[in-house]
Parts: sequence; C-alpha cells; structure tokens
Amino acid sequence: MTDDILSRIRHRGLRDRVVSAEQAASLIKDGMVLGMSGFTRSGEAKAVPLALAERARSQPLKVTLMTGASLGNDLDKILAEAHVTARRLPFMSDPSLRREINAGEVMYIDQHLSETVEQLRTKQLPSVDVAIVEAVAITETGGIVPTTSVGNSASFAILADKVIVEINLNQSAELEGLHDIYIPTYWPVRTPIPVVTPESRAGFPYIPIPPEKIAAIVISNKLDSASNVTEPDAETRQIAGHLTEFFTQEVAKGRMPASLHPLQAGIGSIANAVMHGLIDSPFEGLTMYSEVLQDSTFDLMDAGKMVFASGSSITLSEAKYTEVMARFQDYKRKLVLRPQEISNHPEVVRRLGLIAINTALEFDIYGNVNSTHVMGTNMMNGIGGSGDFARNAYLSVFVTKSIAKGGRISSVVPMVSHVDHTEHDVDILVTEQGLADLRGLAPRERAQLIIDNCVSPEWRDGLQDYFDRAVQRGGHTPHVLEEALSWHDRLRRTGTMKPE
Amino acid sequence: MTDDILSRIRHRGLRDRVVSAEQAASLIKDGMVLGMSGFTRSGEAKAVPLALAERARSQPLKVTLMTGASLGNDLDKILAEAHVTARRLPFMSDPSLRREINAGEVMYIDQHLSETVEQLRTKQLPSVDVAIVEAVAITETGGIVPTTSVGNSASFAILADKVIVEINLNQSAELEGLHDIYIPTYWPVRTPIPVVTPESRAGFPYIPIPPEKIAAIVISNKLDSASNVTEPDAETRQIAGHLTEFFTQEVAKGRMPASLHPLQAGIGSIANAVMHGLIDSPFEGLTMYSEVLQDSTFDLMDAGKMVFASGSSITLSEAKYTEVMARFQDYKRKLVLRPQEISNHPEVVRRLGLIAINTALEFDIYGNVNSTHVMGTNMMNGIGGSGDFARNAYLSVFVTKSIAKGGRISSVVPMVSHVDHTEHDVDILVTEQGLADLRGLAPRERAQLIIDNCVSPEWRDGLQDYFDRAVQRGGHTPHVLEEALSWHDRLRRTGTMKPE
Repeated sequence: MTDDILSRIRHRGLRDRVVSAEQAASLIKDGMVLGMSGFTRSGEAKAVPLALAERARSQPLKVTLMTGASLGNDLDKILAEAHVTARRLPFMSDPSLRREINAGEVMYIDQHLSETVEQLRTKQLPSVDVAIVEAVAITETGGIVPTTSVGNSASFAILADKVIVEINLNQSAELEGLHDIYIPTYWPVRTPIPVVTPESRAGFPYIPIPPEKIAAIVISNKLDSASNVTEPDAETRQIAGHLTEFFTQEVAKGRMPASLHPLQAGIGSIANAVMHGLIDSPFEGLTMYSEVLQDSTFDLMDAGKMVFASGSSITLSEAKYTEVMARFQDYKRKLVLRPQEISNHPEVVRRLGLIAINTALEFDIYGNVNSTHVMGTNMMNGIGGSGDFARNAYLSVFVTKSIAKGGRISSVVPMVSHVDHTEHDVDILVTEQGLADLRGLAPRERAQLIIDNCVSPEWRDGLQDYFDRAVQRGGHTPHVLEEALSWHDRLRRTGTMKPE
Repeated sequence: MTDDILSRIRHRGLRDRVVSAEQAASLIKDGMVLGMSGFTRSGEAKAVPLALAERARSQPLKVTLMTGASLGNDLDKILAEAHVTARRLPFMSDPSLRREINAGEVMYIDQHLSETVEQLRTKQLPSVDVAIVEAVAITETGGIVPTTSVGNSASFAILADKVIVEINLNQSAELEGLHDIYIPTYWPVRTPIPVVTPESRAGFPYIPIPPEKIAAIVISNKLDSASNVTEPDAETRQIAGHLTEFFTQEVAKGRMPASLHPLQAGIGSIANAVMHGLIDSPFEGLTMYSEVLQDSTFDLMDAGKMVFASGSSITLSEAKYTEVMARFQDYKRKLVLRPQEISNHPEVVRRLGLIAINTALEFDIYGNVNSTHVMGTNMMNGIGGSGDFARNAYLSVFVTKSIAKGGRISSVVPMVSHVDHTEHDVDILVTEQGLADLRGLAPRERAQLIIDNCVSPEWRDGLQDYFDRAVQRGGHTPHVLEEALSWHDRLRRTGTMKPE
C-alpha cells in the first residue's frame, strides 16, 4: 500500500478491506437497491458501476439505482445500455437512459431532490441494500469524507446494510473539511435544523457510520466529468440583464438589501449565465444557498461580488476546475457542501428567504411552468430541486429563451402540456424579451403581462388571440379548452407550433 | 359602559375609542387595502364590513380585501354585491363572489395560505392600510385576544397603519388563553420556529401591538355562521374505511406508531367524514396539526381517540358549537389556535411529519390533482392550505368521490384541466372505489393502479382505452395529446363527459 493510500484510509482496521472493483461489485446481487454517490456529474462512484455493467454481460443483473442526481463519466448511459438499471431515482440527464425511460423500459421516479432520503428513512421507499460512495478519505474513526458532492451519500451510507467506499486518489485531499454532514433528527420529537445562514455549520466534516459497515474499499482515480454548460450568448445575456435591472429596482424600493437575498440557481447554461451577469451588477456581498456550485460561483468570488456559497456539489468546466483546485485553500473558507436534503430543505429555504432561479422548458400565459416533459409526454431530465426551491423561496424566478428549435417552438404557450410548478409558485418569469412580475396579480392580469413582456414577437398575436377568445368564454382562468393543447399537438404532427 | 364591556377592554386608555360601526368604517377610504380577521367562517369582523357595504350605496368605495380564508355571515356575498370588493385574497368560498370572480369583475389572487403575510412583510404585496380584527378582549397592555380564529389577524394588525377592533360580546371570554401568537423573526438572521410538537407554545396569548394603533373599537354580538359540512354518507364512509385500512397496514409494517403522525384535514364534508371514521379505528393518542378544527376533532376527543389538536380556527355545526362551548374548559387544555402562517408553515409541516388529507375536485391517471378549477377555467373556492401541506407532509393524501353530478362527471380523468398539486406531491389517492398508493411508482405504474383501484366502473374502460392508446405512442407520461382534455370539452358542450 502506498503512503498516499495509507493517508487516505486512516482507520487501521479498514485497510484490509481494499479489494478490486470486481470483488466489491460481487456484493451486489440481482434485484438489489443501490444508493450511489453523485450529484450533477460530480463525486459519483466510478469504478464499481463499471464492474457491474461488465458483469451484466454474463449474468442477469437488474437493480434499482438511487443517486443524488445526475452522474458523470457516462455511467447512466453505460448502466442503461447494459440493462442494469431497472428503476432509477430521483434524477438523471443522460440521453441513452432518457430513451429507455421514454420507451417504458426503465421505471423512472422523478422526485423533489430533498425528499428521497426522507422517504427512505421512513421506509416509504424500498430500503438500500448497498451504498457505494466516492470518498477523499476514511478518517481514524471510520468516517467517510465525500469528494466533490454530498448528494444523498450520507443517508445512503447510514441506512444501507453494507457500504462500499471508492477512495479516489485524484480527488484532492484538500476537500476534507469542506463538508457539513447534518442529518435531521427523527420523530417523535424532531428538532429544528440549526442552519440559519448560508455559512452555518451544524454537523460533521464526514459521514459518521460504524466502520464495520464498510464491506469493501476500492481505489480509483478517474476525474469527474467536466460541466457541459455553454458560455453565455446574446439571449442569455439579455435574460441576465432583465433580472439584474429588476433586482436593482427591488433594492431601490427597499424590498431587499444591496446584498440581495441568498441566491439559488438551477443547473444549466441559462441559470449559469444569469449568475454570471451579476458580475457587472451593483450588488455586493452576495451569498448562495444552492444545490450546485458552477463556474459562475467562483467567477463571482473572484470578482469580489460573492462572499460565501453553500451547495451540495461543485460542477465546473475543465479550465475552471484546474484553476479552482490550484487555489482551493483560498476558496475553502467561503464554501460548504451539504447533503441535498439540507441544501434543498423547505425549512431552510423558507427561513433564509432565497431568490430561486430555475429554468423552464415552457410556461403558459397564466404562469404555470413545465420543467420536465417535452410535449407533455417525453421526459427531458427531471424536476430536480426546482420544486424544493420554487415553493418555499422568497422569490421564485423562472427563466427560458422565448423560442426553441430555431423558432419552430414558442416557449410561451396557451396551456403548458405538463405542470411542474403551478401558478401559485411562480413569481417572476424572464425571457430575452423581458420580465413579467406576477406577484399579487390575478390570472387575467398575469396573462396580459406575460404576452406583453415575455413572448417572441412572431408568437404574440397568436397568444393574444387565444387569450381574447378565452376571455369571451369567461372564467377565473379563461381557456378555449379544445385548443389549449393544440399548439403542442401541431408540433407533434408537423414539427412546428406554427399554424398549418 | 356595561361591566361586560369594561372587562373586555382592560386597557383603560382605549375605552374612549369605542365608536359605532359606521364611525369606525369611516376610517376606510376608497382604494384602501383591508386586512380582516376570519378563517373558514370563523372569527371574522362582522359589524364594520356591513357598515362599509351600506356606505357603498351612496359613495364610490372599492377596496382590496385580504382575510385569513373564507368569511361567514354572508359577508363575501354582501361585499361583492355592493361592489366593495375589487381585489380579494387569499381564499373565498361564497357563490356570489365566485360569480364575480369568474366574470372577471373581481381580481382574485388564489394563494397558499401560509404565504400571504410573508409577502406582506417583505412588501411584495401592497401594504395593509386598515386591519379589522374580531376580538374577545383587549388586555391591560393593549394586546388583542382573537376569537374563534387567528388566521392572518396578527400580522395584519402588526403591519397595518390603523387597527379597528370588534369586541364580540357573544364570543366566550373563555377563549382567552387558547391562542399562541408567534411571529417569525426577520432577516438578516431568521431563527427556527420553536414549534416541535402540536402542543408547542412559542408566543403570546394575544396579538401584541402598540395600543395607540387601535384607532377604533366597535362592540358587536353576532355569532359565527355554523359550519355547512354535511353528515358522512355511504361513499364518504367507504373513503374513510379505505384510509383506515391503509393506516392499519402502515402501522403493521412499522412505518408509523399506533398514534399515527399528526393529522391535517382540509375543510369540507369528505375530509370531515374521513376524520370521523377514525373514531371506529384501532388508533389511539391521535393528534392534529391542521388549519381548521371541525366537528370531527371534538368527536374524536370525546371518543378518547384524540389527545391534542392545533389549528388556526374552530368551525362547528350549530349543535356542536353549543356543546363545545358549554364544556370549553375541558377542551381548552387540549387545543391551541395559531396564525395560519404557523399552522401551515412548510418548516413545521415537514418537521412534524404530517399526514395531510385534502379534497380533490378531480385527479388524473398520473396522479396530478385539480383542487380549484371547474373545467380548467371556473374557480370553485381556491387552493387554501392544501399546497402548504401536500408538498411538505410525510404523507400527502387526496380524497374525492369517483363521480360527480349524478354520474355525468368522472372525477378521474385522462389529464386534469388545471393542476394545483403535481404528480410529485401526491402520495395516496382515495375514492369510494378504493385506494392507490403511488409512492415510489413511475407514471405508467401509477396509471394502471389508479384505473384499477379508484375509478367508477362505468368509466374504467374509457380510461383504460385512453391509457393503452397513449402507451402505444410512448413517453414517460404517455398521453394522446389531442384527446387529453376532450372529456372536459365534452362536458362543456354536452353537460356530460359521456361519449356522444
């Protein structure tokens, strides 16, 4: 055993548990429930899943796979194509797995990210047989130190019968101390979660489990996949501009301090661009209380705009990763990674008064948001944490470009084809066209504002016409019911929402 | 001044503020925002609104009316018919006001009941000019003791420029001590809400405001309207039976103790019947953490089944009211009334692990629930607290009869015409036909279970046919998009969902 490995496995009694990935994978049997580390392409176990996929070539092997969120290194693709994944929760974003899900081959349970471990803990989901957790190190007492994400790893390890730890020698040892592992107490009397600011620390810097539960340790060295977020473009810059202007007005009205409220931003290019836009804003002393920390978080810190960021994972582009890791000691005191149950917890989200910025696939003239289903039927990725945040935030913002597929699709429609966020949970809508502030408005008022401010010009007349005819029929939320989904049906039949 | 009035207005400096309802109403000007007590037909201010309606006969008078929830004594009807109500939030249930709303004459903002005062406090809604609060008494220090509901009264009084208090001599003085007025602290550092069991008390037994803000006191004596909940019938008894059987199994599986978890039940006949059904159940030591305490709460206490109930209002039938008030000292130590912000707070709902039982207007084969809109357009009442509870509860249950309007409507449809509770927030669906446990299931699995268990026999083939044809097209949540709302459209055109 090299010195590096010895320093990573500090509990002496566990050093003889080091085995090959294949040997570790042999603990996993057909039909088991696996709880695996990994959140937004960060910190997933990397060696054991590959060994599982390999084994499935020669023997029947189907499992229920639970993770934090999406996996990197094409693992969801590899496991789906090997037909290892029979059931999957609570989130994914891989095209191959998506195909299997939409074909009905994989049963996918698309959940609020804060809820999975709560349902496990209360035995409302099948219990985890084996947890597989990527770690930087195992402490002297057998505590597991996660890597670039926490996700659901802590509760998976605590609740599982057996735990496999992948010690990744290429994940920096400096990550130790970054994590705050707090597990909510349990009934009959459950006490408040002692997180009252983004900086609050309430738990351990490692996952505390009895060391005897660690059944195998595997040494690995693959890096996380780089973020696939694209650079800001003209439209996402306009979206960022509208939102910055809105925040400026809110501060001027005395509704928020110049440090705003703690920010949450969903994964993806648009949300990342919006955050990036704050570099050129007048705001100072910003904080984040979010699930994923992307390039923009560190750019805001470098620009002196952001003073602290709490998340459940760090997902960076290749260049940013190198840069951040080279100066990690500088960043570390401004960062904490938490279990996704805590980063997304309704209690904390409401208490901190977050500004939640998430991406819509489409929204309708009354402010209902679809985040997940293409044409009401095909799963894109999943709701992720957007529901945890949108329902409980101080301000719930949804952003999207007003058109998609080269203009064949309007992202603003008469009625969304699937609802993930109801009219009750959406405060602000932003496209590159403009911003609609829906707070305190009745549905008819919202509709006119959305049509005026957010819709791409070539779709405006069509929506106005729909709304006008709907109002003729009457109702609190007027609709022409037989036409409400006709734009989607036309898209399905003709490849465009444009009238035939 | 009579002794009774003197004992009700204990702050000596305020006794000269007693005026007539007309004089008090003169403080209210055209265009103002009013915050009025009243929650589920209980504890609303009764004299001043009538004086306002009277004044509107002779001069222009339009206001924004905010309350806790619905009002008794036909006040929403009277104010709507006098055209005093221009904007209304966050809930109502009056047929005349409903007509005005659906005609677009009154702008109605249908909100989660926990959110209104949070939005007021953060200046995201127009600020309250005048609060009008029914009270049992004013304490020596000027504290306002509410009557049969707390609702939003505390924050209305704290945030308003002026406060009018209606001392209702017919509301029992014994109500004093029943209330627990806790107002969440505010940013920059907001601390946890110290409610950790239904019994927890965290605040004052009165609304603490500077006495000089009390601009007028009116003496009134009208009783609350009686609850309009109907007796359990064959179907609601069957619903209660299915749910009791399910709870029994959950206890047997070790998922819950025999005292279950704290119960929340929505307003209305079905939820009341379900609670009533627990009288004949094997469960003991039940508690409630709910918004409204109905007849069933007291019946369960009388049966020795329920040991404590927390709510925001007490709404009883006439007979039950007389009975409860005659023995109020016996009940009082088992009761607390809180601001609706606390009774419905996401933080507390999640912490206590509630079983939330609410009524659906309709649900679809994938588990999305419509609680508010008839045929997707016409407002029935509003979402009320159901969203506060369903999203954050340990177990989110929705109940409804499987058919409506003498069988012309199926309450289970291919796609709901309006979504208030998404598939992500619905665990259990129950009709008189049976129960569907959706936990941990993918959409296709949910659909088959709902069709098998919850649908009325005459509609089962139609839904199965829809689902089968949708699956042929594929998708994570299969739909025949051009038919998804056709059942509703047929109902609109022909008066029945039945095929022509």
